[in-house]
Amino acid sequence: MTLPMQDFLTQYLRLQSVSLAAENQIPETAAFLKQQFTDLGATTSRILRTDGANPAVYAVFPGQTAEAPILLFYNHYDVQPAEPLQLWKSDPFELKITATHLYARGINDDKGELAARLAAIARLQAQGGLPCTIKFLVEGGEEQGSPHLDDLLTQYADLLASDFCLWESGGRNEQGKFQISLGVKGGVAFQMSVKTADFDLHSSFGAVTENPAWRLVQALATLKNAQDEITIPHFLDAIKPLTATQKQLINQADFDYAAFAKNYGITRPATVADDQIKEALYNRPSLTINGLSSGYEGPGIGKTILPHTALAKIDLRLVPDQTPAETVRLVKAALIAGGYPDIEVSDFLGEPPFRTDPDDPRVQTALALARDTYGDDDVQVELNSPGSGPMKYFYDVNHAPIISCGIGNANSTAHGPNENVAIADYLGFIDYLTQLVTELAA
Amino acid sequence: MTLPMQDFLTQYLRLQSVSLAAENQIPETAAFLKQQFTDLGATTSRILRTDGANPAVYAVFPGQTAEAPILLFYNHYDVQPAEPLQLWKSDPFELKITATHLYARGINDDKGELAARLAAIARLQAQGGLPCTIKFLVEGGEEQGSPHLDDLLTQYADLLASDFCLWESGGRNEQGKFQISLGVKGGVAFQMSVKTADFDLHSSFGAVTENPAWRLVQALATLKNAQDEITIPHFLDAIKPLTATQKQLINQADFDYAAFAKNYGITRPATVADDQIKEALYNRPSLTINGLSSGYEGPGIGKTILPHTALAKIDLRLVPDQTPAETVRLVKAALIAGGYPDIEVSDFLGEPPFRTDPDDPRVQTALALARDTYGDDDVQVELNSPGSGPMKYFYDVNHAPIISCGIGNANSTAHGPNENVAIADYLGFIDYLTQLVTELAA
Repeated sequence: MTLPMQDFLTQYLRLQSVSLAAENQIPETAAFLKQQFTDLGATTSRILRTDGANPAVYAVFPGQTAEAPILLFYNHYDVQPAEPLQLWKSDPFELKITATHLYARGINDDKGELAARLAAIARLQAQGGLPCTIKFLVEGGEEQGSPHLDDLLTQYADLLASDFCLWESGGRNEQGKFQISLGVKGGVAFQMSVKTADFDLHSSFGAVTENPAWRLVQALATLKNAQDEITIPHFLDAIKPLTATQKQLINQADFDYAAFAKNYGITRPATVADDQIKEALYNRPSLTINGLSSGYEGPGIGKTILPHTALAKIDLRLVPDQTPAETVRLVKAALIAGGYPDIEVSDFLGEPPFRTDPDDPRVQTALALARDTYGDDDVQVELNSPGSGPMKYFYDVNHAPIISCGIGNANSTAHGPNENVAIADYLGFIDYLTQLVTELAA
Repeated sequence: MTLPMQDFLTQYLRLQSVSLAAENQIPETAAFLKQQFTDLGATTSRILRTDGANPAVYAVFPGQTAEAPILLFYNHYDVQPAEPLQLWKSDPFELKITATHLYARGINDDKGELAARLAAIARLQAQGGLPCTIKFLVEGGEEQGSPHLDDLLTQYADLLASDFCLWESGGRNEQGKFQISLGVKGGVAFQMSVKTADFDLHSSFGAVTENPAWRLVQALATLKNAQDEITIPHFLDAIKPLTATQKQLINQADFDYAAFAKNYGITRPATVADDQIKEALYNRPSLTINGLSSGYEGPGIGKTILPHTALAKIDLRLVPDQTPAETVRLVKAALIAGGYPDIEVSDFLGEPPFRTDPDDPRVQTALALARDTYGDDDVQVELNSPGSGPMKYFYDVNHAPIISCGIGNANSTAHGPNENVAIADYLGFIDYLTQLVTELAA
C-alpha cells in the first residue's frame, strides 16, 4: 500500500531542517515547500521573511467560490535535533514504514501533520474542488520558540485573514482518546543571575563574604514558598474566573496523575490536593526552575570554592489574562522588594496565554464531527494545552477561533528518538479533516 | 649563586606528582624522597602505606643526643595540576630562577618548603650535628584532601612521637608580615542531592508536580536565613568560648576586608558588621554552597524542562569543638525536621578544627624568635588559619604543639599558574628554621 502523500513525505522528511543546529537545511526546506505547494495546486505560494526569523512559507489553495470560508492551517517545517543518534532504530531522516507505524524525525512534529493536511486537500480536489479556501502559514522556527513570529504575523496580517485556524499539533492522549485543544497556557522564560566577585574564592571566606549561590537560593525562596505556592506579589491578580463551560471542560479532562507519576517514575506526591490537580494543570500558573548552575559542578567533593556567579533558568506558565511582559515586571519588582536588586533578570522569551471560545459555532462543528468520527467516548476536549504556543499572535491578527488536533499519540516521542505515528491515526485524521473542511463550508 | 638544596629542588620539581591527575609520578616521587633522605643522612627512611592513600615517606634525622627533643616536620610531595598551561610563563615542572624569585609548580606548595627544611638540616649538620631529632612525614595526597591520612597516622602512631610539629605551609601575609598560624578551622564537605523522577519532564507539569531544583532551594533555605545566619538547630552549641589570649590574637590580626574585596572585585558588603569580620573569619563556622547543578545549564533559554535531579555541593568550616561527624548528623536532622527527608546527604570529607595553645613554651620560643628575626612589627600570629587541614589527626597521636610558617607570600599563587616564592623568603626561612631547631633544644 502506498500512503497518501507518501512521495512528498519521504522527500520532506529527508530535509534536515533542524532549526537549533548551526548546519541545517532550513532554506532548502522552505524552497522545497514553496515548490510543492505550487505543484499541488496552490495559486499563491511564497516565502515570507521578517528580521531575525527563519523564512516562512505561505500558500493559498482557493475554494470553489469567492464566498467560501477561509481556513488557516498553521504548521512548522523545522524539527528538533535527532541526537542522540544511537537511540534511533532507523535513520531519523528516512521514512520507515512498518505494518502499523511510521518513523522519522518530524513524522509527528510536524511534517507528518502537514502531509496529512495536504492529503485531505488532494482528496477534496479529486472530489471536485475545495469547499473552503485553505491558507498555509508554515514557519521555520517553532523549535526555537518561534522568535519574531509575532513580528512576521503583524507584517503580513493582511494575508492571514481567515474564519478558522487549525493549529500545528495534537493527536491521541494517554487514554488513547482523540484530543482537541482549544488553547494554550502562556509562558515566559528568563535567566536570573548574580555575580558577587571577579573570581571564585577559597570557601574559607564564606564566613565573611557573600555567596552568589546562597543569594540566588534566598532570592528564589522569596518567589515561591515551601508549600510550592507562588508568592510574587500581584502575580495572581490578573487571572480571570472560569466560565461554567470552561469549568466543565476541566472536570471532564482525562488527566490521571497516578498513571503520569508511574510513567515518569515520580517519587513525590502532587504539589496540589488530588481534587485540584486538573484545575492546576489547566488553569494555574507555574513557576519552574529549568536549570541551576553555580561554582564547582564536576565529580566528587572537596573542591571547596566560594563561587563568584550563580544562574537559574526559569519559566512561568501563564493563564488568561496574565502576560509575559507584566510577569517579568512583577518578578523584578518582587526581587527588589525582597532585597535582591542585584539579581539580574535577563533574556526573556514569552508567549501569552490564549483560549478559543468553546461555544464558537465552528468549534462546535469540529467537536461534533470528532465525536461522530472517533466516537463520543473517545474524544477529549481540552480547555487549553498545559503547554504554550504562539496562538494569541494569530488570533490578534485575524480573530479566528483556533483548534489543535492531529496525528500523534502519547508515545510519539515528538522530541525524542524513534519519533512515530500510527498509520491508522494518519489515515483517520485525513478522513476527519476532509470531512471537517466540507462541514465548515456548510 | 647556587641556592641551598638547589640540585635536590630541581630534581624534585621535575617529578610530576600531581595526585589529582590519572597519569602522575606519585610512586616515583615517593621513591625519590626515600633515597634523598637517606643520602642526606637520615638513619631511617621508609615508605608508609595505608589502604586507599598514596604512599607517605617517613624519615628520621637523629639529634646529637638521645635526650634531644623530637621535632616532626609535616610536608606533602603531591602538587596541584599545572593546567591551564598557557597561563604559565615558563615550564611548570622546571625550576626557573630570576634575580628575585623562584618559579615552578610546587615551589611554594610544598616542595620548596621541604627543600628549605632540608637546607636548615644540612647547615646544622655542617655546624656539627642536629640539636634536635627531626622526623619527616611527607604524604602524597594533601591536594586530594588527605584521604585516609588519619588512618595512616593511627597505624604508625608509634613512629610519630614528638615534642613539636612544624606544619606544611605559610609565609608572608597580604601585609607582607611573616605569619605564624597556630591552628586550622575544621571542615566538612558533602553533596545534597534530590531526585524526583526518572526523566526530565516538560515544564508544563510544574503546575502539579514536584521540582527537585525547587525542593533543593527550599531545603537549603532552611539551613541559612536571608541574613546569612546558619539556622541548623544545635549547630552552634559546641562552639567553645575564646580565652583572653585567643581574643587578643583575633584583635591583632591584620585582615583588611576592603583590600580583600578590592582584590577580588567583590561587589557586596561583608555578611557581618565591620567590627565582627575578624571574629567571623577566625572563629565562626561558615556554610558555603560550592556548587549548584540541575536541569538545563546550556546556553540560552527556552529549553523549558522540569529537571528530575538537583545537586548542591556544600562545605562547612568548623571551629572548636565542632566536629565533621556531628555536623553531618545535625544537617541531616535539620533536613528531616524541616520536611526534607528525601534530600540525600552523601560523600563526606571532613577534618576537625584544631588550635595549638598559644601559651605553650615551645610555641612562645618560635614566636619570640620570629619577632627577633623578622622584626616585632613584621610578625603576625594567627589563632588559626581560616582554612582547614589535618592538624588534629597529628595532635591526636602525639599531643605536640603545631605551628605553621614558611616561605610563601600573598602572591605565590600556590594553586595557580606561575607559582612562586621570593628568594629572600626562601633564604630567610632557612635562617629562621636553623635557629629555631637550635633554640627548641635549649
